[in-house]
Amino acid sequence: MSKELTSRTEDYSQWYNDLVIKGGLADYSAVRGCMVIKPYGFALWENMRDQLDKMFKETGHVNAYFPLFIPKSFLSKEAAHVEGFAKECAVVTHYRLMNDTEGKGIVVDPDAKLEEELIVRPTSETIIWNTYKDWIQSYRDLPLLINQWANVVRWEMRTRLFLRTAEFLWQEGHTAHATKEEAVEETLRMLDVYAEFVEEYMAVPVIKGVKTPNERFAGAEDTYCIEALMQDGKALQAGTSHFLGQNFARAFEVQFLNKENKQEYVWATSWGVSTRLIGALIMAHSDDQGLVLPPKIAPLQVVIVPIYKGEESKAVIDAKANEIAASLKALGIRVKYDNSDNSRPGWKFAQYELQGVPVRLAMGLRDIENKVVEVARRDTKEKNSVSMDGLANHVVKLLADIQQSMFDKALAFRTTKTTNANSWDEFVKLLDEKGGFIAAHWDGSAETEELIKEKTKATIRCIPLNNKKEEGKCILTGKPSTQRVLFARAY
Amino acid sequence: MSKELTSRTEDYSQWYNDLVIKGGLADYSAVRGCMVIKPYGFALWENMRDQLDKMFKETGHVNAYFPLFIPKSFLSKEAAHVEGFAKECAVVTHYRLMNDTEGKGIVVDPDAKLEEELIVRPTSETIIWNTYKDWIQSYRDLPLLINQWANVVRWEMRTRLFLRTAEFLWQEGHTAHATKEEAVEETLRMLDVYAEFVEEYMAVPVIKGVKTPNERFAGAEDTYCIEALMQDGKALQAGTSHFLGQNFARAFEVQFLNKENKQEYVWATSWGVSTRLIGALIMAHSDDQGLVLPPKIAPLQVVIVPIYKGEESKAVIDAKANEIAASLKALGIRVKYDNSDNSRPGWKFAQYELQGVPVRLAMGLRDIENKVVEVARRDTKEKNSVSMDGLANHVVKLLADIQQSMFDKALAFRTTKTTNANSWDEFVKLLDEKGGFIAAHWDGSAETEELIKEKTKATIRCIPLNNKKEEGKCILTGKPSTQRVLFARAY
Repeated sequence: MSKELTSRTEDYSQWYNDLVIKGGLADYSAVRGCMVIKPYGFALWENMRDQLDKMFKETGHVNAYFPLFIPKSFLSKEAAHVEGFAKECAVVTHYRLMNDTEGKGIVVDPDAKLEEELIVRPTSETIIWNTYKDWIQSYRDLPLLINQWANVVRWEMRTRLFLRTAEFLWQEGHTAHATKEEAVEETLRMLDVYAEFVEEYMAVPVIKGVKTPNERFAGAEDTYCIEALMQDGKALQAGTSHFLGQNFARAFEVQFLNKENKQEYVWATSWGVSTRLIGALIMAHSDDQGLVLPPKIAPLQVVIVPIYKGEESKAVIDAKANEIAASLKALGIRVKYDNSDNSRPGWKFAQYELQGVPVRLAMGLRDIENKVVEVARRDTKEKNSVSMDGLANHVVKLLADIQQSMFDKALAFRTTKTTNANSWDEFVKLLDEKGGFIAAHWDGSAETEELIKEKTKATIRCIPLNNKKEEGKCILTGKPSTQRVLFARAY
Repeated sequence: MSKELTSRTEDYSQWYNDLVIKGGLADYSAVRGCMVIKPYGFALWENMRDQLDKMFKETGHVNAYFPLFIPKSFLSKEAAHVEGFAKECAVVTHYRLMNDTEGKGIVVDPDAKLEEELIVRPTSETIIWNTYKDWIQSYRDLPLLINQWANVVRWEMRTRLFLRTAEFLWQEGHTAHATKEEAVEETLRMLDVYAEFVEEYMAVPVIKGVKTPNERFAGAEDTYCIEALMQDGKALQAGTSHFLGQNFARAFEVQFLNKENKQEYVWATSWGVSTRLIGALIMAHSDDQGLVLPPKIAPLQVVIVPIYKGEESKAVIDAKANEIAASLKALGIRVKYDNSDNSRPGWKFAQYELQGVPVRLAMGLRDIENKVVEVARRDTKEKNSVSMDGLANHVVKLLADIQQSMFDKALAFRTTKTTNANSWDEFVKLLDEKGGFIAAHWDGSAETEELIKEKTKATIRCIPLNNKKEEGKCILTGKPSTQRVLFARAY
């Protein structure tokens, strides 16, 4: 099985595709740019979603659901939003099909044309703020802390499974506040929630920062982000949290009576992460044998594979394996005993390696006699013979160890791949030969940022929060700068 | 608050709308026919969804996600499916917007016309079976037991919140089997799961039955359903489970190599329930003061309201109430202590009655001195003074009691409202004066069924499973019949 996988050095992009498809995470669909999330991939997403949802609720948010469709005119209401964003959209123009009069199957009924076209939501600020208008009258109605889990559509021309698809799943938080301070605080709180989730559950270290005006969300006053580094040295934006100021409140006329009995526009935030995170997860950890999944969100944490010859030994192994599986389940571990007859142990080993199951237990008759199990960890491929006494506790510790090791490894990689550049030549050379994050001085102008992007395809990923102030000169223009910013080529 | 509600006798339909909107469950949106599910309504849906999801997984199903869009040509592939179904749909014809050259905001880019129109899924049989073609080769790939939680769109002309909306949320199970027997078994298993969920969690009794050919899902060989009775005597179809035969496998060419090494078409089922269930829940239990929610799925099971004068007594009551809330939470009860200063106790009482919180605890200083709490149950409005000793256990028992009482009450109502009719006159009189289910003989022909519907607006809700055989004569035509079927006017 693993033989069929392209290696990372051979073709990184093909390696990624192989893992997604052969690992059973997702597949292309008959609809251009839309993917099918397969059961194994969806189980992974469910674990991620459930944990995030818990963290959102712990920070006082509730879920709601807003319409899939947005009237076209709504998109025009916030000028920057429509300018920067809402062009590549799926547009609904009709609401009925009919049998073709010439018998050519079904056709769109020309009489069923909508008066105003509907846009399949690419993001929901406009429809939600149009609704908030009816929900917010007084400061007593604030803050409004709402999240939505939904599908959204952006008509991307070049798509890649999970990383960039026409339809994807995400959550979008949309909050309303009485003061600017509260809204900024919320924006940063959710950035922290994202960082905590991605680091502690996905074992991917991230840098928290703020985007340059060029890279801001359309309609935001400030866009904060978490940036992760992939194994090919490219960066990936893993989540964003936007301080929207009063822009959407003004566009949709959402005012509230403040404590001083005066009408005031409401302050807003929005924040989101998507199934793109799965792409980040794959590229941060996996290897040439397949996926490597962190135990905390792996659909399956432990697999048990029997090694037997003949039915008789199978019965003995089945009994012991089921006992072990039960002891692991009792500790809340997601475990599967795979005693199917369809394939040989070697094939199963490769299959579960491909699927990134963190721990594999294998045992034959002689192991049972010796009261031991072979324990293999997916991340390092280390194998040990472990006593059956206290096995369950050993596995619990091992899962925690794997989770931590994966994070440490990714962090060490990022540290190695984060370099200061002090001249243009050095900058270009680092980009081409080393990749990763490059910390360099920039003169702060949009023009320079654009020029650097044109010349190198590198973008400013973010200005890290609590960035060190340091006098310097812009690597391109030589103009004075007060701090380094993080550049990288990115997904 | 409750004063603003229309009563059931005054205007049943307006009463329903008042409850949905003023109870904070849902709201109309700016998009015709699409609703906003508000946080309280969504919390209810989450509880229902999570329980159903658990039951699906316990019966061996896994979740996946398929595209929102369906190529138009797919709908033509299964003849009965397209004939009976897929006409009132949202049709995507373009994929880009642009700035109007005359400055009139944004318009649809005429150059961005899709070669083939995409339909926003009204149900996913076609896109899913087109995918299954790639997933199923041999009997070893079967059964395939997949469920999807998704939004779907059907362009209904007359919409009502939850009951019939253009967009709604639902789950759709789509399973593939090697034999007809297995598929039929699965169809009935999921019907049982639905019945168990609706009866045990929603406290709504249902009748399991099979639809007449006229009322079958388009493309199914048999449609099974659960039918519930609302307080106005109308029936509501609460869930359906379809045996699809080999229809979709043939339409999408999904064959498998069976154990005898022969190619064979796959057998299919599909089954679904939707946010419509929330409509059923409201109409089965609620009263003129507001919602009455069954404890097992109520977003909030217990609310504690303090009765105080002055800050000093408030501090004492706060301490005691928080202690009680903690003891309830420790038992897994969803509880809220509402000590907000915004409104008086009487207003809070009315508000939580409106929202259908099953149990309300109220206490003042004197109650604390006497070590008692006033416990009010929402369903019967009974109030009792209960000792604080063992209060938590009392509440646990009370919640279970309310759950059972609500079911019993709804069952008694249905029993009263289920009547045999033995002549046409009796049938019409019962429909007009009593409503409910009417068990009557029918000659088995589609024509008679249609005629009865035309004359009375009553439809055959189902032929109950394990129906008693009984010789009789059709109430309309007098032709011979072997069993009674259940008629009702329905939502």
